[in-house]
Amino acid sequence: MSERYDIAIVGSGPAGLSAALNAKIRKKSFILFGSKNLSSKIQKAPKINNYLGFPGSSGDKLGEAFIKHIEDMDIQITEERINNIYSMGDYFALMVNQKMYEAKSVILATGVEFSKPLVGELEYLGKGVGYCATCDAPLYKEKVVCIVSSNEEGEQEANYVSEIASKVYYIPLYKGDYKLNDNIELVEDRPVEVQGEGKVNKLILKDREILTDGVFLLKDAISPAQLVPGLQEEEGHVKVDRLMTTNLKGLFACGDCVGKPYQYIKAAGEGNIASLSAVSYLDKLK
Amino acid sequence: MSERYDIAIVGSGPAGLSAALNAKIRKKSFILFGSKNLSSKIQKAPKINNYLGFPGSSGDKLGEAFIKHIEDMDIQITEERINNIYSMGDYFALMVNQKMYEAKSVILATGVEFSKPLVGELEYLGKGVGYCATCDAPLYKEKVVCIVSSNEEGEQEANYVSEIASKVYYIPLYKGDYKLNDNIELVEDRPVEVQGEGKVNKLILKDREILTDGVFLLKDAISPAQLVPGLQEEEGHVKVDRLMTTNLKGLFACGDCVGKPYQYIKAAGEGNIASLSAVSYLDKLK
Ligand SMILES: Cc1cc2nc3c(=O)[nH]c(=O)nc-3n(C[C@H](O)[C@H](O)[C@H](O)COP(=O)(O)OP(=O)(O)OC[C@H]3O[C@@H](n4cnc5c(N)ncnc54)[C@H](O)[C@@H]3O)c2cc1C
Ligand SMILES: Cc1cc2nc3c(=O)[nH]c(=O)nc-3n(C[C@H](O)[C@H](O)[C@H](O)COP(=O)(O)OP(=O)(O)OC[C@H]3O[C@@H](n4cnc5c(N)ncnc54)[C@H](O)[C@@H]3O)c2cc1C
Repeated sequence: MSERYDIAIVGSGPAGLSAALNAKIRKKSFILFGSKNLSSKIQKAPKINNYLGFPGSSGDKLGEAFIKHIEDMDIQITEERINNIYSMGDYFALMVNQKMYEAKSVILATGVEFSKPLVGELEYLGKGVGYCATCDAPLYKEKVVCIVSSNEEGEQEANYVSEIASKVYYIPLYKGDYKLNDNIELVEDRPVEVQGEGKVNKLILKDREILTDGVFLLKDAISPAQLVPGLQEEEGHVKVDRLMTTNLKGLFACGDCVGKPYQYIKAAGEGNIASLSAVSYLDKLK
Repeated sequence: MSERYDIAIVGSGPAGLSAALNAKIRKKSFILFGSKNLSSKIQKAPKINNYLGFPGSSGDKLGEAFIKHIEDMDIQITEERINNIYSMGDYFALMVNQKMYEAKSVILATGVEFSKPLVGELEYLGKGVGYCATCDAPLYKEKVVCIVSSNEEGEQEANYVSEIASKVYYIPLYKGDYKLNDNIELVEDRPVEVQGEGKVNKLILKDREILTDGVFLLKDAISPAQLVPGLQEEEGHVKVDRLMTTNLKGLFACGDCVGKPYQYIKAAGEGNIASLSAVSYLDKLK
């Protein structure tokens, strides 16, 4: 049987990292999911003046200080994207494609995805539009699939799906090396609309159209309620109280995913609170 | 007429400093009250591991980084202790003894006072026990007054009262140089209990007793509801929502004074939120 952690932290931005520091200090066993690059939102910021203690900083500089901090405290990041989190009563199951992780408590620190939905995206959600290609790949055996991805993790998903589907189009929303299987067609264009009749049959891009059975939109963050069935939201954010408690027992949330203002130190402060709330939840379980 | 600031920030711990950074970035006029030493709670911490970006830090090191940050951004600290804050409808009056400051909005970041009340303190509050010696000094003309102070700002208060009262005893709860007028008696002992009959007549210390008409307890922070009449509290803390809004329009609060956990980065994160909330309050006034 796999290890059951005290805490699973999902997200490696300032909220998730701050939560990890406190889990470590409080000597809980935990796993931190995210990216070794931390968060694209950390790197992107050109100038940051409001992270107290770092005058006139940049995203890169702040990111380096964060990495040094977690390295000094011997905290590792597990590079996995969680697709779904299920509350199983006294523990949570965190799904990564075929793999499953278990934890007694969960801290969501997944950030927010700012992009507006495509025309038709919400209308066809579940009718050919999906957010997790590998989860739904079996549905597209011998079919045509378009994968629109905000980040390079989408390449692995596309490669996996290309072994099942008859044809895969990969539409990256980022610049990169695109390590794709030979049978995948790379489309460097901007998606605009999903069309269909009852279910998806076409993806409209700025310069071309693709006839397709499925469209996967792989975003930097999926909506929390999609990630965790049963999780209560409020205006598109996870609903929390001031102790970062959600409606699900043992599940806490922090950072951009719980609401505005979207700010580094607000996210880090909330990660601290969420972590201490998880610790006191765990201590009461005993 | 004195300047009316957009924002008055009361307290120079991490919460108040973080609020000030954001007020500055958002180009509001503001005044930051507190101490050039920032906060005794910053200096005291021997080892801090959970302020993200500062691995294995100390209170001193963190304090230096904070000071560098506000200096770089040309933010000044006004060394005054606010005794009372009154909501005047469309602005606030902040009282410092004889002086008054005005601001359209206020951010409370006063921290918490951990000390337990003395035996008899709450029973005789307003009946000889007070928290602001200079405010109530006129009541003690030709009378005997004991001043118990947690910090050296008490020395000025004692000197002021000694010009009115017949006798002043000064009982410091800290080590220092004690710059006191000659007619003040320094008592280096630990206060234990306030006694009286209807009103205060005695202060009991560990090693002696003093017959007195009044006892002033000058703490690092007074309770927020005492500072701001009409402010709603909840379990001894300022009641706020997740945007750090209080029950008083235009008054925001953050940091230890709004509740646990008592932590640096939580305080700084909340200071950021409170400041942006004040900015959006001000922008709506226009
Ligand atoms: C250009 C730009 C400039 C900015 N400038 C400033 C500024 O000057 N000051 C300021 O305070 N703020 C600024 N911000 C905002 C700041 O970046 C965010 O508020 C902050 O990064 C939020 O932190 P977070 O931890 O909540 O989320 P994020 O930093 O977004 O991190 C979320 C992490 O979770 C990961 N994740 C999401 N879903 C999953 C999953 N299912 N499985 C595994 N991992 C997952 C993501 O990959 C990411 O690593 C700026 C943002 C941008 C984009
Ligand atoms: C020994 C010790 C170790 C700690 N270690 C850690 C740690 O490792 N990690 C961690 O996260 N936290 C730690 N803390 C907690 C941390 O210090 C506090 O949570 C933090 O300082 C709270 O910030 P604040 O801005 O809310 O209040 P404070 O830092 O208390 O600042 C409040 C400020 O307001 C001023 N003030 C109050 N009333 C008035 C008034 N009427 N007029 C003008 N000014 C006023 C005060 O003088 C003070 O400067 C520690 C605390 C102590 C005492």
